[in-house]
Amino acid sequence: MQHAAAIARLTEIFGDRLSTANAIRAEHAQNETHYDTMLPDAVVYPESTEEIAALVKICAEEDCPIVPYGAASSLEGQHLALKGGISLDMNRMNKVLTINAEDLNVVVQPGVTREQLNEDLRTTGLFFPIDPGANASLGGMTATRASGTTAVRYGTMRENVLALEAVMADGTIIRTGTQARKSSTGYDLTHLLVGSEGTLAVITEITLRLQGIPEAMSAATCRFESVEDAVNTVILTIQSGIPMARIELVDEVMVKGFNLYTKGSLPEKPHLFIEFHGTPDGTKEQAAAFGDIAEEFGASGFQWAEKAEDRTALWKMRHNAHHATKMLEPGAKILSTDVCVPISKLAEAVLQAQEDSKRLGLTAPIVGHVGDGNFHCGISCNPEDPDSMARVAEMTSALSETALRLGGTVSGEHGIGLGKMKYMTAEHGPALSYMRAIKASFDPKNIMNPGKMLPPGNA
Amino acid sequence: MQHAAAIARLTEIFGDRLSTANAIRAEHAQNETHYDTMLPDAVVYPESTEEIAALVKICAEEDCPIVPYGAASSLEGQHLALKGGISLDMNRMNKVLTINAEDLNVVVQPGVTREQLNEDLRTTGLFFPIDPGANASLGGMTATRASGTTAVRYGTMRENVLALEAVMADGTIIRTGTQARKSSTGYDLTHLLVGSEGTLAVITEITLRLQGIPEAMSAATCRFESVEDAVNTVILTIQSGIPMARIELVDEVMVKGFNLYTKGSLPEKPHLFIEFHGTPDGTKEQAAAFGDIAEEFGASGFQWAEKAEDRTALWKMRHNAHHATKMLEPGAKILSTDVCVPISKLAEAVLQAQEDSKRLGLTAPIVGHVGDGNFHCGISCNPEDPDSMARVAEMTSALSETALRLGGTVSGEHGIGLGKMKYMTAEHGPALSYMRAIKASFDPKNIMNPGKMLPPGNA
Repeated sequence: MQHAAAIARLTEIFGDRLSTANAIRAEHAQNETHYDTMLPDAVVYPESTEEIAALVKICAEEDCPIVPYGAASSLEGQHLALKGGISLDMNRMNKVLTINAEDLNVVVQPGVTREQLNEDLRTTGLFFPIDPGANASLGGMTATRASGTTAVRYGTMRENVLALEAVMADGTIIRTGTQARKSSTGYDLTHLLVGSEGTLAVITEITLRLQGIPEAMSAATCRFESVEDAVNTVILTIQSGIPMARIELVDEVMVKGFNLYTKGSLPEKPHLFIEFHGTPDGTKEQAAAFGDIAEEFGASGFQWAEKAEDRTALWKMRHNAHHATKMLEPGAKILSTDVCVPISKLAEAVLQAQEDSKRLGLTAPIVGHVGDGNFHCGISCNPEDPDSMARVAEMTSALSETALRLGGTVSGEHGIGLGKMKYMTAEHGPALSYMRAIKASFDPKNIMNPGKMLPPGNA
Repeated sequence: MQHAAAIARLTEIFGDRLSTANAIRAEHAQNETHYDTMLPDAVVYPESTEEIAALVKICAEEDCPIVPYGAASSLEGQHLALKGGISLDMNRMNKVLTINAEDLNVVVQPGVTREQLNEDLRTTGLFFPIDPGANASLGGMTATRASGTTAVRYGTMRENVLALEAVMADGTIIRTGTQARKSSTGYDLTHLLVGSEGTLAVITEITLRLQGIPEAMSAATCRFESVEDAVNTVILTIQSGIPMARIELVDEVMVKGFNLYTKGSLPEKPHLFIEFHGTPDGTKEQAAAFGDIAEEFGASGFQWAEKAEDRTALWKMRHNAHHATKMLEPGAKILSTDVCVPISKLAEAVLQAQEDSKRLGLTAPIVGHVGDGNFHCGISCNPEDPDSMARVAEMTSALSETALRLGGTVSGEHGIGLGKMKYMTAEHGPALSYMRAIKASFDPKNIMNPGKMLPPGNA
């Protein structure tokens, strides 16, 4: 067994909350993507920050890797134990610690999922808006800088994490940020850890901003003759200052998938799915203003959903994009990838992606958080077939290159993990050495999720 | 002359854009606070990023400090050349480089001031919302993580800087972030540099988010019998999801100052100054909802300002707080300090500050960005009188201790500079060593604004 010394010492602390059973290790080696299973040497279930600090100290002494594990919904292999070591399963650290209703924030442990949090908030009139689709853990969402359908209105995890507690690579427990909404004191370690994918620290506590549940919400779908028309509608809507809560682009291929999945009959054209939050009169006004703009760009087939159940049905359809994608090529696996570009370049990027998928003979429907310029391709593939995987690799490369060419980023919300390390140099250039310098300084033994995010190279 | 070798080499590059004249050096040693003048050895006026890179490289070779200098409106001495060296005057790098109207962002050089930027944006229908009062440079605002009256709606510089170009301590030019609105790729160097006060890098280009100018704006003032009533109004308004654009608390002492300055006759009670942005109907609805809440807490004397000139007059009064404070104790200097606490603790913090200033016999009116829990004390003082300065020091210490005791931060927007280094350990605890580690790693020769932000101590 690798790392036997570390595991022996950890067993003394964790007892039966440490497992080396093959089934448990294999479960923690699963992933939503196409990666081979990568077995950790042991899985540990900590129940407190102090336990994690003790664990990290031992792992530092024994040179044993630590890979935090939450809901395992990450899409770039962030939770996989590439170099073995400890899979640190955070699911027992799943308490909502303090709801500060007056301050519109909440303190949670990292194993709390976003749905669990909103369930716990139900009686408070408050909610946590970030919605990446999956019922991800909030620790994982913090570590990957997740976002989703509501980022256009409420921001991403970047804007919604106020403070953190974390265990550093030598076992030191630190706190970043305060309970105040803003601060100008010192380097912003909170934002340095948000999106660091477990490579700098284990996040053990998170203070999140909350929002008041809007008095009124209304949602709608409408269709366009072209992706450009849909995107131009979004650009003008944003420029007009209409505060959309959600605005999602669904391309004609994705609509076909939705129709198959829901036995629906939406015309197979690009659609926008939108939602407004506010007062009753305010949302009416917003919806009317949006409608005027959309009609200028030839929108038709408006379907409004004002009742809660109609809105839920609409967003359920959107969130079932993964399953709907599977209907398009039965039996295929789906590789979900994302890029993000300036909104002005979104139509160009989407059209390029559609062209690339046609050229490569791939089924690759597109859904996008279009208010942010962020879109996803769900590419059907067959991991057993090298030709299929080669074409998928060409497609994902083409997407990333398009994003960079248009001034964007190779990931808006899925992160780097294993899958996108190869683009880090192209995207960050000389800035990459400063990321490496931080990694070397914070984690000199390279035990924190080693082999992820930063490509091998010289500091 | 200190740093003669560096200055000789720099003179070859900058010619008459390097000055060692006493008058110029003395001008760059001025400050808005009470610090003694601290003379740089030379003042350099760069005109491009490449020039700055060349300068930094020479300074690194010659161990010569570099202190970026913008509008000199910083309040904690951030721009003072504590250890001599080069005052890097950024005022010739004052171009608005690209307005990306469709993407709602703008790329500026650091010497552009916020008023200049909004002037340049006038024909676009867009504006840059961050308003710290002073006509600060955008480089300085970025470096100090500034905010101001509109942060409750639009966020601080933290939320509004999308990307940066910067020159690092060895002369390397890096770019952080992209033109996309969000990204999950790599460590967030943008946010690491925002608020770093020139201690890690010289910021040479900034991409800022813009907002559409709202269709309608309305503003109002109203008064309360107590600070608690005013603060509770704010808490309930925020919880109700009413999107205020500005909400400022003005205490009874400050009102007295306004009355003296404007020859007005506002009742000397705590006031709220508020503003709503949105559609015509939306702002009416917001204002009515706010009015209902305020009346629950005994508000009276509502004065609405819907016409642009009335709103301007209202906010001009607010922005003249510094001059109005001077009216309260003619001849005195004003030390402006700020702290930020969770909103639920704001009334307690303000009342404690009022009590402390009475106890210490100080005139210290309070104005606050109450939606963020951030407030300012403008303390009258006489720098020639050691007793006055001792009481002022006691007052600022008491304020910081109150903020920390209530879960807040010693500065919401002024930053650390020289003035608040002594609280860094109390606020950040073990996290401070990770800040020191970043500083040591990025600037091993300690030439970037040395002696600021991080208190002396072991890494």
